Amino acid sequence: MKTGLLIIATEVLNGKIKDLNTSLIAGILRSHFHELEVQVAVADDESRIHQALNFLSQDCDLIITAGGVGPTKDDITKATLASYFKKALTYSEEAEKIAEENYQNMGRPFPGKDHPYTFLPEGFRPLSNPNGFAPGFFFDSGKIKIISVPGVPRELTQMLELHLPTLVFSSKNNSFFRHVIIRTRGVPEEKIFGEVDPSLWDKLQSLGSVSSLPIIYGVDIGVRVSGNSEQELNEREKKVHQIFNQSPVSSHIWHRGSETLEEIILKKAKEKNKTFAFAESATGGLCSHRMTDVPGVSSHFTGAVVCYDTNVKIQTLHVSKELIDSKGVVSEEVALSMAKGVRENLGPDIGISITGLAGPAGGSTETPVGTVCIGVATSLQSKSWRYQFKGDRNLLKNRFSQIALFALLDALEENA
Amino acid sequence: MKTGLLIIATEVLNGKIKDLNTSLIAGILRSHFHELEVQVAVADDESRIHQALNFLSQDCDLIITAGGVGPTKDDITKATLASYFKKALTYSEEAEKIAEENYQNMGRPFPGKDHPYTFLPEGFRPLSNPNGFAPGFFFDSGKIKIISVPGVPRELTQMLELHLPTLVFSSKNNSFFRHVIIRTRGVPEEKIFGEVDPSLWDKLQSLGSVSSLPIIYGVDIGVRVSGNSEQELNEREKKVHQIFNQSPVSSHIWHRGSETLEEIILKKAKEKNKTFAFAESATGGLCSHRMTDVPGVSSHFTGAVVCYDTNVKIQTLHVSKELIDSKGVVSEEVALSMAKGVRENLGPDIGISITGLAGPAGGSTETPVGTVCIGVATSLQSKSWRYQFKGDRNLLKNRFSQIALFALLDALEENA
Repeated sequence: MKTGLLIIATEVLNGKIKDLNTSLIAGILRSHFHELEVQVAVADDESRIHQALNFLSQDCDLIITAGGVGPTKDDITKATLASYFKKALTYSEEAEKIAEENYQNMGRPFPGKDHPYTFLPEGFRPLSNPNGFAPGFFFDSGKIKIISVPGVPRELTQMLELHLPTLVFSSKNNSFFRHVIIRTRGVPEEKIFGEVDPSLWDKLQSLGSVSSLPIIYGVDIGVRVSGNSEQELNEREKKVHQIFNQSPVSSHIWHRGSETLEEIILKKAKEKNKTFAFAESATGGLCSHRMTDVPGVSSHFTGAVVCYDTNVKIQTLHVSKELIDSKGVVSEEVALSMAKGVRENLGPDIGISITGLAGPAGGSTETPVGTVCIGVATSLQSKSWRYQFKGDRNLLKNRFSQIALFALLDALEENA
Repeated sequence: MKTGLLIIATEVLNGKIKDLNTSLIAGILRSHFHELEVQVAVADDESRIHQALNFLSQDCDLIITAGGVGPTKDDITKATLASYFKKALTYSEEAEKIAEENYQNMGRPFPGKDHPYTFLPEGFRPLSNPNGFAPGFFFDSGKIKIISVPGVPRELTQMLELHLPTLVFSSKNNSFFRHVIIRTRGVPEEKIFGEVDPSLWDKLQSLGSVSSLPIIYGVDIGVRVSGNSEQELNEREKKVHQIFNQSPVSSHIWHRGSETLEEIILKKAKEKNKTFAFAESATGGLCSHRMTDVPGVSSHFTGAVVCYDTNVKIQTLHVSKELIDSKGVVSEEVALSMAKGVRENLGPDIGISITGLAGPAGGSTETPVGTVCIGVATSLQSKSWRYQFKGDRNLLKNRFSQIALFALLDALEENA
């Protein structure tokens, strides 16, 4: 399915308000493993909207329109879609029922039959709006599906969450569906479906529509399986996992499911009853910031030492000055010593360290910008790794933090 | 003139980042009394970009493209415009000069002649980028004008302000303009122009078009002054500052100019030759993460102790257990002790501490979620403050970090 988004809002184009809906809707689609193909914003103007619909229908099967469905003069979305599809506006009993229901939800009496909300273009279906008054509407032309919702973020969020699954994501015969999400790391998208397993995509596609979403240092693969019963879904999901189990990609899988890495780490830490702390140099607090975005993390996150200054590494983390001088501050040896140091100093079960160069300045031939060393220390063992990435300062900090959080996840899973 | 905007950014469509540029560019156009006709966002994909250019050129005389002008493989804007207008990419002496100049502005040597920045489609003109490395470019096909700029908000803002007037707006009379930016904190937008100074907006408007942008815990006010000479601009800018100096708003101003808070802190720290460190509890590393996003910060940012666990406050920062038990962990007394502790432990000139409740759980009647205490310790003095905010966990972390960075800025300015 290819989805286009049409924002209908004069205020967005003249700079009076910020468009928050594109990012909201992209997020909702992403949570259903879909992506926006293209987004357009136009003013409340019939000919502009027609042009945009022509442009979007070149490639899209679904168009979501946001805005212009209220009762006032400048709410022209309904009339404009009617003229676009050459449909007359007629009274609809279903529309009146939905409008009445919306008013009920909002605790207000419905003004009655003559209200603009009771009229719809022929063949359109009204959509309930539990957070507002204006109904949305849906039309399937055969060639293209259109969903129109109000521009109010809290209204459209709930409406799309409510209606997209039944209107768009599920087909007639297959009334049940499920997204099976397999998350890989360390291998770029083109390699996963290229040299690692060239037949993977086609095998998965035989079970449901496949999508692939590159994230920091990894790729999330989604398969939308459908069936007539829960049992059928379970069987198909099992087959998806079997395909992965038999694929060389399996060694790159770090999770099956849609929770965030930070949430999974906290879940594992709770399961294993382990606490953790960071010694952050190049990431400068980002690992701690990411983990503390998860509510309830305080029970298992002890804290961190952000050791930007070499003296902090030496005095607070007890890394020896000789080691830094001989091996370099960005070295596996120093990373190991930092991980041990933060474990001793803050007292968690697991100490994770990051030392690297996020640039732009400071690189050398042996240690270019983008180099990072990660250390892990537990009561049983200590380990270190060295990686080399590309990117600007911001991207590098993000990649370094992702690698460090993966090292923490591994340590938790290994019972280390 | 009819203007179309093309956002080229895969991350906007898959929901990974919010598009801030449409609203920025609409604002810039508005300050020049122009409006966007239509805006489109597409992924970094040649055929999608071609389709969007076809769509936009139906009606527009000017197309602004934002994004995809960097040096990496997915930066395809230049090559895509070349193929769209059927122009060959050729070496351009002017492009090399501009690229060299951009690198000079950023304090870095230019890699040299073979760099992708030295190539342009035939007939295109390179555009300087005083805030970044990647040059923009301009093309006038006779039928349509195209301006391409990077997607980084602070780069594109300055570039459009710089180049739009000479390339597009026929500004015969007012050939000079300048944005005077005044940044306030601690008072919401409606109060600034309401009870604090109801005549401020009109007074400023008499000198140029006024804009107001609410940010975390503050409002940025901009006045676009124009004139026929540098001297005229200087006089008008002086008048803007005079209006603010005579306004009750003046006590809420923390900066005049457009740099970020983090950049200003680093600049001040360099001026005063002071180092700083954080003791972060409720912000969980966010203050450190924000400061380490600024290149070159390592000379003045010593590090941080993220003391999420109470034991870390006690053992690493030497806050007394009795103090925590008697005053509560979110108290000015504990904040003071944390600030002193991080100063002793990590050895910076200035120690800044944050202890608070970001929620959702953990609040009480005396200390509800949203409470934060900030402490500052220097060789001369120590101070603390208590604030109460509203918001979800993420917003609260952001507000707490903003308040803490303001406390650091104040300490630097006070020579404390």
